[in-house]
Amino acid sequence: MIFQSDNVSGAAPEILDALARGMVGTAVSYGADPATARLEAALAEVFETEDLAVLPIATGSAANALALALLCPPWGAIYNEAHAHIAVDECGAPEFYTGGAKLVGLAGDHGKLAPGDLEDALAASGKGDVHQVQPAALSLTQATECGTVYTVAEVAALAAVARAHGLGVHMDGARFANAVAATGAAPADLTWRAGVDILSFGGTKNGCLAAEAVILFGRDPAREWEAGLRRKRAGHLVSKMRVISLQLEAYLADGLWLDLARRANARARRLGEGLATLPGGAPIHPVEANEVFAPLPATVLAAFDAAGVGWARWDATTARMVCAFDTTDADVDHALGVARAALADTGAAVS
Amino acid sequence: MIFQSDNVSGAAPEILDALARGMVGTAVSYGADPATARLEAALAEVFETEDLAVLPIATGSAANALALALLCPPWGAIYNEAHAHIAVDECGAPEFYTGGAKLVGLAGDHGKLAPGDLEDALAASGKGDVHQVQPAALSLTQATECGTVYTVAEVAALAAVARAHGLGVHMDGARFANAVAATGAAPADLTWRAGVDILSFGGTKNGCLAAEAVILFGRDPAREWEAGLRRKRAGHLVSKMRVISLQLEAYLADGLWLDLARRANARARRLGEGLATLPGGAPIHPVEANEVFAPLPATVLAAFDAAGVGWARWDATTARMVCAFDTTDADVDHALGVARAALADTGAAVS
Amino acid sequence: MIFQSDNVSGAAPEILDALARGMVGTAVSYGADPATARLEAALAEVFETEDLAVLPIATGSAANALALALLCPPWGAIYNEAHAHIAVDECGAPEFYTGGAKLVGLAGDHGKLAPGDLEDALAASGKGDVHQVQPAALSLTQATECGTVYTVAEVAALAAVARAHGLGVHMDGARFANAVAATGAAPADLTWRAGVDILSFGGTKNGCLAAEAVILFGRDPAREWEAGLRRKRAGHLVSKMRVISLQLEAYLADGLWLDLARRANARARRLGEGLATLPGGAPIHPVEANEVFAPLPATVLAAFDAAGVGWARWDATTARMVCAFDTTDADVDHALGVARAALADTGAAVS
Amino acid sequence: MIFQSDNVSGAAPEILDALARGMVGTAVSYGADPATARLEAALAEVFETEDLAVLPIATGSAANALALALLCPPWGAIYNEAHAHIAVDECGAPEFYTGGAKLVGLAGDHGKLAPGDLEDALAASGKGDVHQVQPAALSLTQATECGTVYTVAEVAALAAVARAHGLGVHMDGARFANAVAATGAAPADLTWRAGVDILSFGGTKNGCLAAEAVILFGRDPAREWEAGLRRKRAGHLVSKMRVISLQLEAYLADGLWLDLARRANARARRLGEGLATLPGGAPIHPVEANEVFAPLPATVLAAFDAAGVGWARWDATTARMVCAFDTTDADVDHALGVARAALADTGAAVS
Repeated sequence: MIFQSDNVSGAAPEILDALARGMVGTAVSYGADPATARLEAALAEVFETEDLAVLPIATGSAANALALALLCPPWGAIYNEAHAHIAVDECGAPEFYTGGAKLVGLAGDHGKLAPGDLEDALAASGKGDVHQVQPAALSLTQATECGTVYTVAEVAALAAVARAHGLGVHMDGARFANAVAATGAAPADLTWRAGVDILSFGGTKNGCLAAEAVILFGRDPAREWEAGLRRKRAGHLVSKMRVISLQLEAYLADGLWLDLARRANARARRLGEGLATLPGGAPIHPVEANEVFAPLPATVLAAFDAAGVGWARWDATTARMVCAFDTTDADVDHALGVARAALADTGAAVS
Repeated sequence: MIFQSDNVSGAAPEILDALARGMVGTAVSYGADPATARLEAALAEVFETEDLAVLPIATGSAANALALALLCPPWGAIYNEAHAHIAVDECGAPEFYTGGAKLVGLAGDHGKLAPGDLEDALAASGKGDVHQVQPAALSLTQATECGTVYTVAEVAALAAVARAHGLGVHMDGARFANAVAATGAAPADLTWRAGVDILSFGGTKNGCLAAEAVILFGRDPAREWEAGLRRKRAGHLVSKMRVISLQLEAYLADGLWLDLARRANARARRLGEGLATLPGGAPIHPVEANEVFAPLPATVLAAFDAAGVGWARWDATTARMVCAFDTTDADVDHALGVARAALADTGAAVS
Repeated sequence: MIFQSDNVSGAAPEILDALARGMVGTAVSYGADPATARLEAALAEVFETEDLAVLPIATGSAANALALALLCPPWGAIYNEAHAHIAVDECGAPEFYTGGAKLVGLAGDHGKLAPGDLEDALAASGKGDVHQVQPAALSLTQATECGTVYTVAEVAALAAVARAHGLGVHMDGARFANAVAATGAAPADLTWRAGVDILSFGGTKNGCLAAEAVILFGRDPAREWEAGLRRKRAGHLVSKMRVISLQLEAYLADGLWLDLARRANARARRLGEGLATLPGGAPIHPVEANEVFAPLPATVLAAFDAAGVGWARWDATTARMVCAFDTTDADVDHALGVARAALADTGAAVS
Repeated sequence: MIFQSDNVSGAAPEILDALARGMVGTAVSYGADPATARLEAALAEVFETEDLAVLPIATGSAANALALALLCPPWGAIYNEAHAHIAVDECGAPEFYTGGAKLVGLAGDHGKLAPGDLEDALAASGKGDVHQVQPAALSLTQATECGTVYTVAEVAALAAVARAHGLGVHMDGARFANAVAATGAAPADLTWRAGVDILSFGGTKNGCLAAEAVILFGRDPAREWEAGLRRKRAGHLVSKMRVISLQLEAYLADGLWLDLARRANARARRLGEGLATLPGGAPIHPVEANEVFAPLPATVLAAFDAAGVGWARWDATTARMVCAFDTTDADVDHALGVARAALADTGAAVS
């Protein structure tokens, strides 16, 4: 089922080793342990600032929902690209955590919002009208749901619009590593320096077992205390916190996270380029991170199924294929071979 | 910090090994993987029935809150012993998950509810009065917050009262293994055969890293679907589900869970018996599982702190000490030695 | 400010009289009073069935939110026309009452949904996918937000699609009287016989002070009990219930409600026809109930403001003018005169 | 059914007159009408300050829940006397509005909290511990649920404890008029000067039809905006707001509210004194406002039922009888006569 999603992948050996070593013996619970302290230091280094707070958490949905609840009251509106995970893949987790906020989906271009569209939406938002929910947050997905990546300038432009209207800025970084690897930008430049308030920093899709972190940029004891209470109340304060911290510590050590992401991105590029040579295989979105979206013919999809090559339906005409850190060139070439053979059987001209 | 809580302990090697082996390579996500299937089979065997459904989940608070939300509507009341973890240690997680239900704490005896008291409370509950929240669930903690254990007959008697009044029955089994080890009763007898509808089956406090399961007794597709949606919405549907399932599978294999619990219980018994020989050290609750509650003098507590012996304040006059699967006889004897020396220094007559 | 909305109108004298007479002396509280019983009987007659339950309530937003909470769980989706009051004018009340459900706005034609569009939306809804909110309810607005009216056949066709997919059907009838008056259809035909499960039956906009009723079609004690508890919990169980019941009783007596609605509808027709004769005044939606939407030039709107003629901005290019039971022909003619004069001043050719 | 509750009473004629006059003709909706402005001015005068904001609302439960939601986050705790209406008579409305806060009931003396008990409870509250809900608000009921009244000094002492611990102070004044009438204290002294942040100012139980006001002491635009959004979202922003404002305006005019309360209080005193002369009739709480609690024998209660004299069961041994503004001396004497006759029939010595 490789290619179905990056969450079908296993865990990176370095991370498993860290767990095996770090989970022996006692450690203070609930985050006061040394591994969590080391993780905080590592993130401070990666993001080039001590002015942040970190909440390790087990899932990306929880990270997103928690972050949004910190930015948006029950009567608030959260602006997002229409395909955003928070809007269509979390069964209403943001609504649950916020106490009933409303998500406002805007059409994007290859999954990316445009500042002008956000500006227009906010102008029509009913701000100040007690009959309407009040604009509260912008949520950007980086890398996007369409496998593209915001540049630093693009993040900054969107965040500037949001901030000018008093909105907080959240970044869903379930695939943040892939975006950093793709852009080569500094994590700080892609986030707080560009105006991001809270980042859902993902590890699970890129070699961890189950490890994410909510990163709050800008120290604010009241907000951090609220974050801690919300996390606890959501059942997400893992008692043996080092379980998550150890994973993320190993993930960050020696740039492993970016190595893993580069591998996944490279495989996706190879896959996209290969598909592009096939009739009907050209990706519909630029392949910038680790995902490929292509309008593959039914015959190819059937052949994938028969051969155990994973894929997921994206919409009526498009298949999504995702590469992970442990996808190999051979996996990619196998998929391409299956596709080529299927098309050859149907007489299509395969280059 | 040993004795501070059972969640300062590490993970059992068998469980770490299972993770190290099982997290390599691909597996279907969101619970359709082989490890989760094997876990379900293992739990069916342990509970002697196929008529159950299993939701692996990362924390006990989430397991409890999810279970209670399945049993109690927003306008419902949940009856529990006044010290219950759901009432005093989860920052309102049950209120959050249920959408605002009310917890009604009843006084217990050594942490255990009495059927007559439950009967009285239900008689005064305002059932059928639209102005009052409506009785919906009973939550029992097994082992209890006071380190005692309900017998099969005690569970059955309480569940019978609850069911006669139309309440669902939840069991918070964060320390279920310790209770099974203590009573020697069959898990089935302590739960569904005694009238328990949903069990929070704990692993974390007894050798797992972060692994619990919500077990729904009696197949009910509508309830299971609701449970799945609630879990997802709470951010608790771990994508690489095998992370949890592998832990619990190893936990159950060859009776490991009960071996670990027996060790913890034995250490607590040794600790309790040792303290009982000291002036002011006699446990205030029967030591039936892995916790000891004793009115230790300040001098002893100070000596513990100085010597790095863990403990936690239970109330103004009582200290709680908890043993885990990896607490050793030497750890216990060390603590007893520190206590004895502290008392000797003060001139107390130490037996 | 006449024409700004139908809620700037006063109360009908018959209704004020009923209050003045009925609020003297004692009556059992919380709905067990004779006036409420009489109201129930009157609604049974109007809707030609005893098979309904009635919850008087003070506002339309509360009626809608309560109805939707009965039809839609926290993880559900409610389908509605994009302009629906529940979506854009209630500050998230449905999200609050449901515990975080999602409203899905579909584009309509003059405010009316088409069965095919609903069918398409439901086909793409992610039903059965645990990652997505689950379709639960259809909410129709009758008369619509665009001043149009669904025919019996149209309601039935939409409800049929909804029911085929397992959705409950809600009708926001804040202007139900206007719709009945416009169509001449039997209330029963427009609601339960067409597949409507719950009706928000409005009185406030049509001559009451503050009086609505949630009407549950089909007796179901469990649903009614839940409805009662939800109403109480929302602070909407008015203790001196007769306050609302007396209003609605007088509203229904001798067909007053339809007389009042016919007056409002006639004034709107007169206004629409008058505006249609002016340059740029032609209504953009059929004037079927008591609202007129016209792309009035800024000069006219400024003249309205100067002359104290009410109107409300609908969107960037359209003004909304609403007639109430107490709007007079003279009011309409005055407004038209102001508009005509404003246009004459600008040299526009006024017919 | 007189005496069953003060909400079985009708409306005062002055208030009905105000409605009949004020509800004719148009007025701006949603609170921007002249009657609401006049009400605000009247309350400013009554409370001797312009430094307040007013939200008219239809029910006392909504007023309380809204006030508490402003003072207490979802993870907060609200301290109240154990019998408080918010805790036992509102079906969890505070939990609903706050998003799942916890109510902590403390034992009172004749319905009144003692500062020392509040201090003790707060000391044991787990403030600062992420595992526990955080103390956020104190809610006082004035007059209390036991028919007693806090003095100015008592309110101030309790509020001082609350404020010293960072809690906001709410007063449930469903019977505030009765308390003012009983104490003779200035409304300002009983509220903001004593440390009350938000008052639920009741009208319904004392001669209005359905009219309360949430009074926020101390102008704070952000809090007022939040209050407005919360009210709207709860379906409590009455469109024809003057419906409520007119009632309260008439209620306050010329001291009507205190006249009405004095009548009710006087009748209760007469009733209490009368019952005190009967065997088993002595009130168990001081009769300071308009309620009488007496351990009336079953034979008396049966006679009441037979004679149509209202009462309500308070607890297993106590009946509650409530006087309203329209209860007459004759009503009281009739009830006493029925009681006396019933006791005479049983051979009891009636003084």
